[in-house]
Amino acid sequence: MLIIDALQYVNWTRELFETARGGGVNAIHVTIAYWENTEKTLANIADWNRKFTHHSDIIMPIKTGDDILKAQESGRVGIILGFQNCSPIEDDIRKVETLHHLGARIMQLTYNNQTLLATGCYEDGDSGVTRMGKQVIKEMNRTGMIIDMSHSAEKSTLETIALSERPIAITHANPLRWHEALRNKSDKVLRALGESGGMLGFSMYPFHLDGGPDCTLDNFCGMIMDTADLMGLDNIGIGSDLCQNWGYDTLEWMRSGTWTFKPDYGEGSASNADWPRQPDWFRSSSDFGNIISGLEAVGFARGDIEKIMGLNWLNFFTAGFKPQAA
Amino acid sequence: MLIIDALQYVNWTRELFETARGGGVNAIHVTIAYWENTEKTLANIADWNRKFTHHSDIIMPIKTGDDILKAQESGRVGIILGFQNCSPIEDDIRKVETLHHLGARIMQLTYNNQTLLATGCYEDGDSGVTRMGKQVIKEMNRTGMIIDMSHSAEKSTLETIALSERPIAITHANPLRWHEALRNKSDKVLRALGESGGMLGFSMYPFHLDGGPDCTLDNFCGMIMDTADLMGLDNIGIGSDLCQNWGYDTLEWMRSGTWTFKPDYGEGSASNADWPRQPDWFRSSSDFGNIISGLEAVGFARGDIEKIMGLNWLNFFTAGFKPQAA
Repeated sequence: MLIIDALQYVNWTRELFETARGGGVNAIHVTIAYWENTEKTLANIADWNRKFTHHSDIIMPIKTGDDILKAQESGRVGIILGFQNCSPIEDDIRKVETLHHLGARIMQLTYNNQTLLATGCYEDGDSGVTRMGKQVIKEMNRTGMIIDMSHSAEKSTLETIALSERPIAITHANPLRWHEALRNKSDKVLRALGESGGMLGFSMYPFHLDGGPDCTLDNFCGMIMDTADLMGLDNIGIGSDLCQNWGYDTLEWMRSGTWTFKPDYGEGSASNADWPRQPDWFRSSSDFGNIISGLEAVGFARGDIEKIMGLNWLNFFTAGFKPQAA
Repeated sequence: MLIIDALQYVNWTRELFETARGGGVNAIHVTIAYWENTEKTLANIADWNRKFTHHSDIIMPIKTGDDILKAQESGRVGIILGFQNCSPIEDDIRKVETLHHLGARIMQLTYNNQTLLATGCYEDGDSGVTRMGKQVIKEMNRTGMIIDMSHSAEKSTLETIALSERPIAITHANPLRWHEALRNKSDKVLRALGESGGMLGFSMYPFHLDGGPDCTLDNFCGMIMDTADLMGLDNIGIGSDLCQNWGYDTLEWMRSGTWTFKPDYGEGSASNADWPRQPDWFRSSSDFGNIISGLEAVGFARGDIEKIMGLNWLNFFTAGFKPQAA
């Protein structure tokens, strides 16, 4: 079965690539920017190019939907480069195309905070899509850079769905109705996303789960069934938000960047600051089989499970990575 | 009479410094950043350091209120370095202090568009002061970097006045009640500004004037009298927004930066795109005498004119450029 994970943030080693391959994963959208500016993003892309060379027997870069099928055929893990923030383009709309040329295929308009383009989900106010944001959405549409609103605020997300001429993604989040969290999404957003042909990737990051690390597989898969009813079976997939092999310093940087002197605990708190414990049914890329079993157990048909585990993202990425038809 | 101009954007030459000195100007807040990132701002600061060396007989850098008096005593034009945007600090709050150390003393939180800190006056929505904005306001307060909201949206401006522990400035704008323009300010903003000990600098940029380039000196000075009633006589000064010796390419860059492919005409329009004509009573730094005459003509007392022309800014800058008392 084709398996695509639409979000991981992992401190990759050859061993972890092998784990992913062993777990049957054919493609992973990997985050290479949270706060990185252009220069630091170029360095991260260069690091990935080295990885593609050194581990060409087990990984390969994904630039088109066809590349995902090639990865599957050759038994390698396909890597989709993406940004969880718009910091890589700084204030220059022209860099969307430059970074697309260099292989980036997905970009969030915001990471928690306000950006030049839109408002993040941790802000009190939400100004919606900005003047620059409107221009950048057009440019992402034109070049084939997928818009991701996982960490964006509600009004900004709804406006982006409406403004974008191509479907957008929320690569890693869950429904708010299932678990109250700033990062989870309202029915209104999920309906608009589904109706516009967009995709939601279900997150297994404990802060997004009902019951946190103790969320059961059955509960999680029941939520997927419920969301399929809300959004349509063709608009959902997996975006595990698996974070692996990082120390606390990385988490601190993800949360606080250089925007505050005061520590920010993000979804955690001062007394619960560290990386959360993963649910025992999803601790690494070895565990996708558990999700498949869970989906079977709640009553999904085989064809539906194939869509959720990978075919929906394959279709979405195949269309979305192409430049816009003239 | 001490004369301080709280905003000019000039392509400076020795001749233009001499004009300013000849016009009796003792200190000018000069813009050295609209869209410049840290690196480009450092280059602009370095350029100014060269100017301070080469023209040390007629200009000098202003870092404290006392420096303004030294400039006056030595017959030189004092130069206050400032930014019309927060782009110089990029996404790094620590750079506020770095740039203060290098001589910058005034920073706008936004230039027309949304920034990481607050919303600009050309945006449709206004999210108010952002999470990073709240932290940066504290840091600007601490270091003695004056907050300028000349190009900011209303809600963001009111929130900043409330959040800032030190008075803020609107260095160059006029009352909205006098002339309807996105850049002019409502009574609500002006009252809050005055009540908090903040300062408004009156702009002579034609798009901010009732009647544009044909605004009469009498009309302009009558507006000042009216605003003195609204805000208090101690909270107003001059911020001419004089732009000189630039080609159209500079105006285009000020308006469009690199945030849009579509030309943006700012306060102008496609059919009226170029630099506006200055009113004939204020065409250069030679013309401050006209303002003094105009203020006399509408009935201001000598002592009041001295406040408006320079003493109010002197007091405000003397307090504001100092680090915050512990």
